[in-house]
Amino acid sequence: VIRVVGVDLGGTKVQGVVLHGTEVKQDERVETPPGGPDAIVRAIVELVDSLGGTKHADAIGIGVPGAVDHHAGVVRRAPNLPDFGEDVPLASLVADALKVERVVLSNDVGAATVAEHHLGAAKGSDDVLTVFVGTGVGGGLVLGGHAVHGATGAAGEIGHTVVVDGGRPCGCGKSGHVESYAGRACIEREARRRHAAGEPTTLVELAGDGRMKSGVLAKALAEGDAMTIELLDEAVRALGAGIASAVALLDLSLVVVGGGVADKLGPAFVARIEEAVRSRLFLATSPVRVVAAALGDLSGAIGAALVATT
Amino acid sequence: VIRVVGVDLGGTKVQGVVLHGTEVKQDERVETPPGGPDAIVRAIVELVDSLGGTKHADAIGIGVPGAVDHHAGVVRRAPNLPDFGEDVPLASLVADALKVERVVLSNDVGAATVAEHHLGAAKGSDDVLTVFVGTGVGGGLVLGGHAVHGATGAAGEIGHTVVVDGGRPCGCGKSGHVESYAGRACIEREARRRHAAGEPTTLVELAGDGRMKSGVLAKALAEGDAMTIELLDEAVRALGAGIASAVALLDLSLVVVGGGVADKLGPAFVARIEEAVRSRLFLATSPVRVVAAALGDLSGAIGAALVATT
Repeated sequence: VIRVVGVDLGGTKVQGVVLHGTEVKQDERVETPPGGPDAIVRAIVELVDSLGGTKHADAIGIGVPGAVDHHAGVVRRAPNLPDFGEDVPLASLVADALKVERVVLSNDVGAATVAEHHLGAAKGSDDVLTVFVGTGVGGGLVLGGHAVHGATGAAGEIGHTVVVDGGRPCGCGKSGHVESYAGRACIEREARRRHAAGEPTTLVELAGDGRMKSGVLAKALAEGDAMTIELLDEAVRALGAGIASAVALLDLSLVVVGGGVADKLGPAFVARIEEAVRSRLFLATSPVRVVAAALGDLSGAIGAALVATT
Repeated sequence: VIRVVGVDLGGTKVQGVVLHGTEVKQDERVETPPGGPDAIVRAIVELVDSLGGTKHADAIGIGVPGAVDHHAGVVRRAPNLPDFGEDVPLASLVADALKVERVVLSNDVGAATVAEHHLGAAKGSDDVLTVFVGTGVGGGLVLGGHAVHGATGAAGEIGHTVVVDGGRPCGCGKSGHVESYAGRACIEREARRRHAAGEPTTLVELAGDGRMKSGVLAKALAEGDAMTIELLDEAVRALGAGIASAVALLDLSLVVVGGGVADKLGPAFVARIEEAVRSRLFLATSPVRVVAAALGDLSGAIGAALVATT
């Protein structure tokens, strides 16, 4: 059995798992430190130590929120990691610090897609789209049983497909994207804009001085806050349109919805997305189902480990 | 050298080519007869005879406007062929009538995509979307060098991806699709609706009692007809948004635009679509180019022949 440590390097926390074959033996997390690559490498060393060290690990996989050169082991661009410039040779930095030979980088969302496909909600399905609804909206694709990377390794950006041309601004600078309506950061911006314009909502009070987290959305929804209901209706519609378009283009059999927002809003949110997709299907005969992700927020770390085994 | 006859079975005409290896030796066409499968088979026999018969043909490929079961040689659904019910065993009907062993069915748009990929504008490209703008808007996909069929063989429907959720009605019964704005039939319906509501346009006069053909659109545009300019602006925007979404999702390197409307409107139309795609690209680093199809309306017949050789 291959034993691998998988690490999911996030903007707020770094999560790790020990994977023996397909079994998760242990998981731990530390806060993402400020201070750039050196501090990140130290946090990864600390995390791996807390997981029992590298003595029994054949390899380490690291999922990174950004563009990575898988073969070179270099992070090309990771705007959400503190003080990461361009071209950080993270694989060799970690390999040197931990004295392990094999360190493999992957994109975090791509890794999570691999995890859901091999061990999660998409196990056994050959034509799958994953949609992770969190601060932004990311995704990954499996077609004919194989992960789709695209011409430059950037495939899967379901969050930046257009559902209302010329519509609401997106965090990326364009507009009318799925993420414009369904990403947490875009929902927060829209809620604060409407609130500042005089529209009442409990969202702003619940968030206080901090970020309007997914849990805040869930709480305001449970309380029946009108603006929250409306914003989440818009999110469901945008996800429905974007996913239905992907189904028309790719004839998918399965869509897996995960991410922080989907986790907090629960099965009812995923069921509403499935209904929104169904009402927009081009082919009534499409076999597509929309289901919740199965691995929760460990999918990135598990997937990073899986990628390192192959 | 393999010698194959390729047939493109259209709603108004049946076109045929003789392909020797990758070279088109001859092409012919007959009108699509009314009268169902028997009449269609007789028309195909006549067409193949006019191309020199089957004496020197190793196989016959037939592209069909609808859903086909490639392996069984059966047409499952072809709403645009006169009097085709469900499940017509066209491959064996043609094989018997022409006394040839190998008759291979394919979807016409899928076949045209294979042709553009192997011999046309997408030769040498591994991640390609084709978009055929005609009465409707169809398309096909090549990823990693291989044609994408999807879970049920229905992949490629770029025309039925959503660009304005809740927008203009589409021929398919849903709304806000690329085809709603860019398909000839939808443009015609919108033009006649606006004209009936009192908006002036030369489109309706130019069309007379018949269909508002692609040539009519081109003529009205050349004359500076205000409604035509507006409708084609909307078509370009919808194609730009739909294609940009496909690029975000699939990280394509090339998009090939063909079909009757694109052929009649010429290179300026394709250039405007490329501009509309560029202005909507999620990744500025995307290598994608948008180019005109190279094989014109023979792409379906050539592709049907290519599919029959493999």
